[in-house]
Amino acid sequence: MVKNMDQLHNRILLSPDQIPKNWLNIAPFLPSKPYPLLLPNGKPAPAEAMMRMFPVGCVMQAVSQEEFIPIPQEIREALAMNARPTPLHRAFRLEKALGLDSDKQKIYYKNESVSPTGSHKANTAIPQAYYAKQDKLKGLTTETGAGQWGAALSMAGGIYGLDIKVFQVRISYQQKPGRVVMISNYGASIVPSPSNMTASGRQFYDKDPNHPGSLGIAISEAVEMALSDPGYKYSLGSVVDFVCLHQTVIGQEAQIQLEMAGDKADVVIGCVGGGSNFAGIMFPFMKDKLTGKDPNVDIIAAEPMAAPKLSKGVYEWDFGDSAHQAPIVKMYTLGSSFIPAPVHAGGLRYHGAAPLVSLLQKHNKMRSVALHQRKIIESGILFSKTECILPAPESCHAIAVAIDEALAAKDKNEKKTILFNLSGHGHFDTAAYKAHMDGKLEDYEYPESEVQKALKDLPNINEKELGL
Amino acid sequence: MVKNMDQLHNRILLSPDQIPKNWLNIAPFLPSKPYPLLLPNGKPAPAEAMMRMFPVGCVMQAVSQEEFIPIPQEIREALAMNARPTPLHRAFRLEKALGLDSDKQKIYYKNESVSPTGSHKANTAIPQAYYAKQDKLKGLTTETGAGQWGAALSMAGGIYGLDIKVFQVRISYQQKPGRVVMISNYGASIVPSPSNMTASGRQFYDKDPNHPGSLGIAISEAVEMALSDPGYKYSLGSVVDFVCLHQTVIGQEAQIQLEMAGDKADVVIGCVGGGSNFAGIMFPFMKDKLTGKDPNVDIIAAEPMAAPKLSKGVYEWDFGDSAHQAPIVKMYTLGSSFIPAPVHAGGLRYHGAAPLVSLLQKHNKMRSVALHQRKIIESGILFSKTECILPAPESCHAIAVAIDEALAAKDKNEKKTILFNLSGHGHFDTAAYKAHMDGKLEDYEYPESEVQKALKDLPNINEKELGL
Repeated sequence: MVKNMDQLHNRILLSPDQIPKNWLNIAPFLPSKPYPLLLPNGKPAPAEAMMRMFPVGCVMQAVSQEEFIPIPQEIREALAMNARPTPLHRAFRLEKALGLDSDKQKIYYKNESVSPTGSHKANTAIPQAYYAKQDKLKGLTTETGAGQWGAALSMAGGIYGLDIKVFQVRISYQQKPGRVVMISNYGASIVPSPSNMTASGRQFYDKDPNHPGSLGIAISEAVEMALSDPGYKYSLGSVVDFVCLHQTVIGQEAQIQLEMAGDKADVVIGCVGGGSNFAGIMFPFMKDKLTGKDPNVDIIAAEPMAAPKLSKGVYEWDFGDSAHQAPIVKMYTLGSSFIPAPVHAGGLRYHGAAPLVSLLQKHNKMRSVALHQRKIIESGILFSKTECILPAPESCHAIAVAIDEALAAKDKNEKKTILFNLSGHGHFDTAAYKAHMDGKLEDYEYPESEVQKALKDLPNINEKELGL
Repeated sequence: MVKNMDQLHNRILLSPDQIPKNWLNIAPFLPSKPYPLLLPNGKPAPAEAMMRMFPVGCVMQAVSQEEFIPIPQEIREALAMNARPTPLHRAFRLEKALGLDSDKQKIYYKNESVSPTGSHKANTAIPQAYYAKQDKLKGLTTETGAGQWGAALSMAGGIYGLDIKVFQVRISYQQKPGRVVMISNYGASIVPSPSNMTASGRQFYDKDPNHPGSLGIAISEAVEMALSDPGYKYSLGSVVDFVCLHQTVIGQEAQIQLEMAGDKADVVIGCVGGGSNFAGIMFPFMKDKLTGKDPNVDIIAAEPMAAPKLSKGVYEWDFGDSAHQAPIVKMYTLGSSFIPAPVHAGGLRYHGAAPLVSLLQKHNKMRSVALHQRKIIESGILFSKTECILPAPESCHAIAVAIDEALAAKDKNEKKTILFNLSGHGHFDTAAYKAHMDGKLEDYEYPESEVQKALKDLPNINEKELGL
């Protein structure tokens, strides 16, 4: 199986039969028991409440302690249609541009940008739509910021004949007509949020029909609409356990592909917004670390300096959304009312990190790095130039850390094999590069005082009372 | 080798080793001798003039009568980096939406949209840059409209360390900042045309520094700059024979993939601007038709009603560009001064068709269909919804014809296997779909009187005097 890697074979490809047959559940391997979700009122969430909000199949997965959770064949077929398995690339030309010794420092990336919707998001959109269909729902509601998640869920809804209702933050709806088009083409309905379709929306819409909106308001609208109609449930694109689970196809494929290349990752890197693409690539490696099979693998989260929850946040109970409609979870957070600076990596502008990722960070099983915007975009430009792919600003965070790790190893003349997740392409996000070309790209310092202010609103949860 | 095609195996994938080792030269199989290029003054173009303008390796290919022209290994490696071989998809979900009997009417498409630059253009950009490097050039100049070609050549220039200078029609430069970003990221220089960098440009620029430009002016600027500096030559993205040759990797791969699927194309479809992606997919099938191996394969060009050169033009000698700097060729044309209506498929807004394609149409070895804009965008929306990929407006023409052919076969209860080329994605061209959403998408009737006016300017070529 081991291939001679060369310029002709810089991509390791798998056949559709090699789409994983199971999702990898990290739960049985965690160094301590994971915390439950709480309702917005601070009480433990009964299973029925979760099943009213999310598809039953997803809720069941979130409470499973099985190592492997089978992926239904219909989901594997839909993943195949969405370009899975994705290629693993050896970044030969990037390595050369960095002056690495290619026998010693190697860079690989898993290319999730080949999905027709442009990112890893389809990996969970498809199962969520599939289980919604099993629940005999009419449809799903969701929110989207820049639109990557909205596009993926709309595509998946099209596959299973579901009505998808997307609330998009109005400012993004206006600035990114490309993704609005994509979502509409998939047959979903998309409305700018705040809208006049929900009570949560009307609070803002009635005062200002052109209100720019926020992810917090859009989540509230989507949840409200789902709970008000028994034909609908709510769908989330990151953060929660079952989303991280669905993304593990990424890391499982990458492990097989690295083995085919005759290699083994010393470092695994992903960018973190809610944490799902990062969880997706690293959980299979984390399992090997936690079980002692590969105790030294170095796992790194790449975050924007504008929203560095893992690097600078606190590990506390907090609301999942700013409007306090979504569950409360224990996670690294900057406070649910914290509004990150308008960095171009819109997908990383979230105040918290997935509970499972947060728990692993708390136990020092991984580390995190916060990066400035100019640096990551410059890394993305070097990547475009050498690897030919225009990366999403989110993915540029992972690229920047991979480059830093490789150069550090080169300086020390160390052997190091680096793997990062290229979570998506930047075809709809070229404004970030344009700003750099025009000398208008800003760096934002970590806003310490604003985070301190936001952290004052943490909910008051008594773990002992809850028996935790 | 024959696969059971099912939802999991809806894509037929090849390994990088299966990138063709040769380009297929259609010249030895043509039903009559092809016509030479003439200089803009109507005289036969001496080889030296051609070699001053284009890389020597490309000029040599254009005069070859060998059936197979070897593809250098370095070019195959660069094609591999650009996602070759591309997948062949069976359009199961589109077939189902059309109510086809999937044992009888089958639709396949070759997916060139997976290239990092977004289209088939890299297939010729890479060899042109490679042969420019062999000529020890500093760089290449070119023009681009919407930017697909400019992006591909810039990417290829980056691979071979060439300086690429792109003149982009100013109106597109202003309207499509996404492709400007992509071209700049690849390290090329891009200027809006008309510019003040050439005499051809200054004629217009000095009167109006914000002149919207045209492809004709941009070609003149690129040719002038190439001829004024011995370190540079000129690069073209379509029309000429060697470009059609380079694109034959598409059809060669498709034939192998269809065979793997246990199938055989009855109909082969591509959209036509200059004609290179169409030539690329159909030449291998055309060879089989011309040699009697497969005499009945039906080969169809899909054109916009706004520029239907093959359907409604004349087969005459004409200038390749509106500024009369480029060679004169014998082709189907609407007249070099004809300006097509502003359809969204910018890549199809060219007045002529490749001489090799034109010759085959003249001999009735293929046919052509002209389509209205609303119809093709509606076909593209159905394709998005079913196959999940957002197609370029150019490619939507091929989709529309494929759908029509399939439905006609269904009506007659006929067996028919249809293959079309999906030449590129529409991530940078969403304005066309937005216009449809907003009810603002226009159809343009064939402008008969304007074509008649433009045809009055055909050059006066005496074939007998030239010994043709």
